[in-house]
Amino acid sequence: MNAVRVGLLGCGVVGTEVVRQLQTHAEDLAARIGAPLELVGIAVRREHKPRDLDVDPALFTTDAMSLVTRDLDVVIEVIGGIEPARTLILSAMEHGASVVSANKALLAEDGATLYAAADKHEVDLYYEAAVAGAIPLLRPLRESMVGDKIRRVLGIVNGTTNFILSAMDADGTGYGDALEQATALGYAEADPTADVEGFDAAAKAAILAGISFHTRVRLDDVYREGMTEVTASDFASSKAMGCTIKLLAICERAADGGSVTARVHPAMIPLSHPLASVRGAYNAVFVESDAAGQLMFYGPGAGGAPTASAVLGDLVAVCRNKLSGATGPGASAYAQLPVSPMGEVVTRYHISLDVADKPGVLAQVATVFAEHGVSIDTVRQQSRQDGGGEASLVVVTHRASDASLNGTVEALRSLDTVRGVASIMRVEGE
Amino acid sequence: MNAVRVGLLGCGVVGTEVVRQLQTHAEDLAARIGAPLELVGIAVRREHKPRDLDVDPALFTTDAMSLVTRDLDVVIEVIGGIEPARTLILSAMEHGASVVSANKALLAEDGATLYAAADKHEVDLYYEAAVAGAIPLLRPLRESMVGDKIRRVLGIVNGTTNFILSAMDADGTGYGDALEQATALGYAEADPTADVEGFDAAAKAAILAGISFHTRVRLDDVYREGMTEVTASDFASSKAMGCTIKLLAICERAADGGSVTARVHPAMIPLSHPLASVRGAYNAVFVESDAAGQLMFYGPGAGGAPTASAVLGDLVAVCRNKLSGATGPGASAYAQLPVSPMGEVVTRYHISLDVADKPGVLAQVATVFAEHGVSIDTVRQQSRQDGGGEASLVVVTHRASDASLNGTVEALRSLDTVRGVASIMRVEGE
Repeated sequence: MNAVRVGLLGCGVVGTEVVRQLQTHAEDLAARIGAPLELVGIAVRREHKPRDLDVDPALFTTDAMSLVTRDLDVVIEVIGGIEPARTLILSAMEHGASVVSANKALLAEDGATLYAAADKHEVDLYYEAAVAGAIPLLRPLRESMVGDKIRRVLGIVNGTTNFILSAMDADGTGYGDALEQATALGYAEADPTADVEGFDAAAKAAILAGISFHTRVRLDDVYREGMTEVTASDFASSKAMGCTIKLLAICERAADGGSVTARVHPAMIPLSHPLASVRGAYNAVFVESDAAGQLMFYGPGAGGAPTASAVLGDLVAVCRNKLSGATGPGASAYAQLPVSPMGEVVTRYHISLDVADKPGVLAQVATVFAEHGVSIDTVRQQSRQDGGGEASLVVVTHRASDASLNGTVEALRSLDTVRGVASIMRVEGE
Repeated sequence: MNAVRVGLLGCGVVGTEVVRQLQTHAEDLAARIGAPLELVGIAVRREHKPRDLDVDPALFTTDAMSLVTRDLDVVIEVIGGIEPARTLILSAMEHGASVVSANKALLAEDGATLYAAADKHEVDLYYEAAVAGAIPLLRPLRESMVGDKIRRVLGIVNGTTNFILSAMDADGTGYGDALEQATALGYAEADPTADVEGFDAAAKAAILAGISFHTRVRLDDVYREGMTEVTASDFASSKAMGCTIKLLAICERAADGGSVTARVHPAMIPLSHPLASVRGAYNAVFVESDAAGQLMFYGPGAGGAPTASAVLGDLVAVCRNKLSGATGPGASAYAQLPVSPMGEVVTRYHISLDVADKPGVLAQVATVFAEHGVSIDTVRQQSRQDGGGEASLVVVTHRASDASLNGTVEALRSLDTVRGVASIMRVEGE
C-alpha cells in the first residue's frame, strides 16, 4: 500500500506535538487510515534551531512554497496568521493536496477564498483545531447535527479570559490581579490583547456562526466587546442575581429564522446553566437546536497536545477521503442568511446606575425605559452609606433590542438625577 | 438529480419524529445532501393505526421484508430489539442499502455480524442514536478522536436512573419514592428493570468500549450492577466525602494498555467532577485521552425529537457517502485487546461496616485489609446512639483490584466483631 504523503507547515508548540503524535501513534494511525503516513517535510522559519524532536534533520526546510508543491496528499498548516499561510494553503490545494489547518484568524478573515479553492480543486479543508482546541465540535456541528436546525450557540471559547474570570469569581479579585496570576501561570501571553479584548473569541464566533447557520460570516460581522472592564463589583451584582460572568461567543438565528447575529462580550449567566461550572482555562460550547435540544461540548481549548489531537483527527479523516477518492462535506453557505447588526440583537440587561437619593428619581428613570420601549423586570434601589446623597439603582430589564437599550442609556445619561452609569451587563442563557 | 430512496422500519415515538423532521427540513436536508430524499415506505406492525402524521397512507406496510428489498439507498431501523431487526438490517445490506440504526441492544449483542455484513456489501452502518440519544458522541469518538488514544470513558448514559439519583441527592428521598416520581413524570417505564438494573447502560458501555478501544466488546463482557440498592444513607456518606452518586458506564484501558474493561455500577464521584452536575434525565459522557485530555459531551439522552436528530445526522452522512460512491469509516476492531474480567478492575472503595463497639475491632478490621493487600486511605469510626453496643466504621481504601476487595469483604464478614457490611461503593473520577 502506498504511503500517504504529508507536509507540515510550522513546527512551534502545536507542530512539534503533531510530529510527536505522528511518531508515537504511527501504527495505530496506519491501521485507522488504511495506509501508512509519510512525513515528507516540515517547513520552518529557522532550519537549524535546536528542537526537542527525534526526526531526520533533512526534513526541515525554510522553503515552504517548494514543500507544498511536492506532490503531497495532505498539508497540515499550523503557522497561524494570514500570510504566508493563505498563499501556501491555496498553492497546496492547487497542487492537489487536502489541507488540515488550525488557523482561526485566516478562516474567520478569508474562509470564503479557502472554501472556494477546496471546492475548485476537489480537495478537503478541515479545521477542527481552529475552534475550542481538542473538543470535537466543528465536525459534530457540520456532520452529526446536519439534519437538525441550530438556533443558538453559546461558547466559552477563550481559555485565557475564562481563567481570569474564574479567578475573579472565586477570589473576588480585580481584573488586574487575576490577569497577573494568569500571566504568571502561563495562561496569558505577555501581550494579552487578542484574548482579553475578545479578538480571538470573535474569530471563533465567525467560524461557529458560519458552520451553524450554513451562512458566510466574516470576522467583521462579529460584534466584539472585551472583558477588561469587568469589575469585582460586577461579580458581586452577578452573585446577587444567582449568576456568574463569562466572556461568551454567541451566535443566534433570529426568531423568524430570516437572519443571524454573532457577537462576543462578557455576560451574566445563571449558576444553574451548564456553562457556569466551566472553570479555569477550559472551553465549552453550548448548542441549542430544534430537535436535539441542548447539547454541550467541553474540554481543553488550547495547548500543544490537545490541539495536535484535533489536527490528527482531521488528518485521519482527510487521508481516508483521499484513499477512497472522495472528499468530506465541504463548507456549506447555502442558507445565505443576512448577518444583522448588533442593534437588532435582543437580550436582557443588568444596569447599575448611580442616582441622586431623592423622591421621584425612580419614576423619572422608569419613564425613560418606558419611552424607549424597554420593559423593566426588577428594580433594586439602595441608599449609599457614605452620606453623599447618592443611591445605587439596579435595573434588570425584560428582553429588548440592543438599539433600544443604547437609546435608553443615552437618555438616562442626560438626566440630572443620574450621576453615572456604573455598568451595563447582558444576561444570557436563561 | 435522482432522489435518495429511504425506507423506514418502525413508526413509534422515534420513527414518527423522524418522518416529521424529514418533512419539516426537506429543503435543508436536500441542500446538505446534494439531492432530495424520497421516503419510499414505512414498515409498521399495524397498517391502519391512527397516527399523528401527514403522510400518504400508501407508504405504510406491514411487510418490512419486502420494503428492505425494494432497491433502497438507505434503511432507517428504529424498531429496536434483536429480531426481526437483525434479519431486516442484514437483508437491507445484502440488497445494497446502507443502514442507520438506533438499536443499542442489537449492536451490543451482535454488532460483529452487522459490521461484517456492512463490510462485505460495502455499505454504511451508522448508529449515533444508539448511545446518549442526541449527543454527537460515537462519530466524534470514531472520527474526530481517531488520531488520539482514549484511556477511559465515564458515562451517564441512562436518563431514567440519573433522574432518580438526582432526585435522591436533592431531596434525600429513598429509591422507592424517587422511582415513583420518575414514573409519574414519564421518565421511567412501567417496568423499569432494563434501566434500574443497568441493562440499558451495559449495552451502551459495550458499544462505547468497542469504539473507544477498537476492540470487539459484547454485552456479556460488561460487568453490571443496578442502582436499586442505593440508599439515602449512601447519599449521606457520599456528601460527607464531597461526592455524589451516579450510575456510571465505565470503559477503561488497563495501565499497560494490553487489555480493557467495561462495567456499569453506581459510584461516588467528587462534586467537582463535571459529571457531578449532570442532573435529571440528561446524559453526559466524559472521555480521557492521551492527547486531547479531558472532554465531556452533554445533552438529552432520549426522547423522540432528540433521537431523531441523531438519526437524521447519520442519514445525511450516509446519503452523502452514497452519492460520492464511498463509505464512511467502518467499525474497527484492529486492536483486538482482550476484555478483562471485573476482578482485575482497579479502583477505590467506600465501605460501611456495622461493628461491635469495643476495643481492638479497628485493629482486627485493619489487619484483614492488610492481609488482602488492600491499603486503607481513611477510617472513620462512630459509636451508635441507640445503645446496642454497635459502632459504624467507614473505610475508604486506596486503589485495589475488585478481586482483592471481594476477598477482604468476605473475610470481614466472617469476623465475629463485624455485624454486617452495610454498603460497598466504588469511588471514581478522582
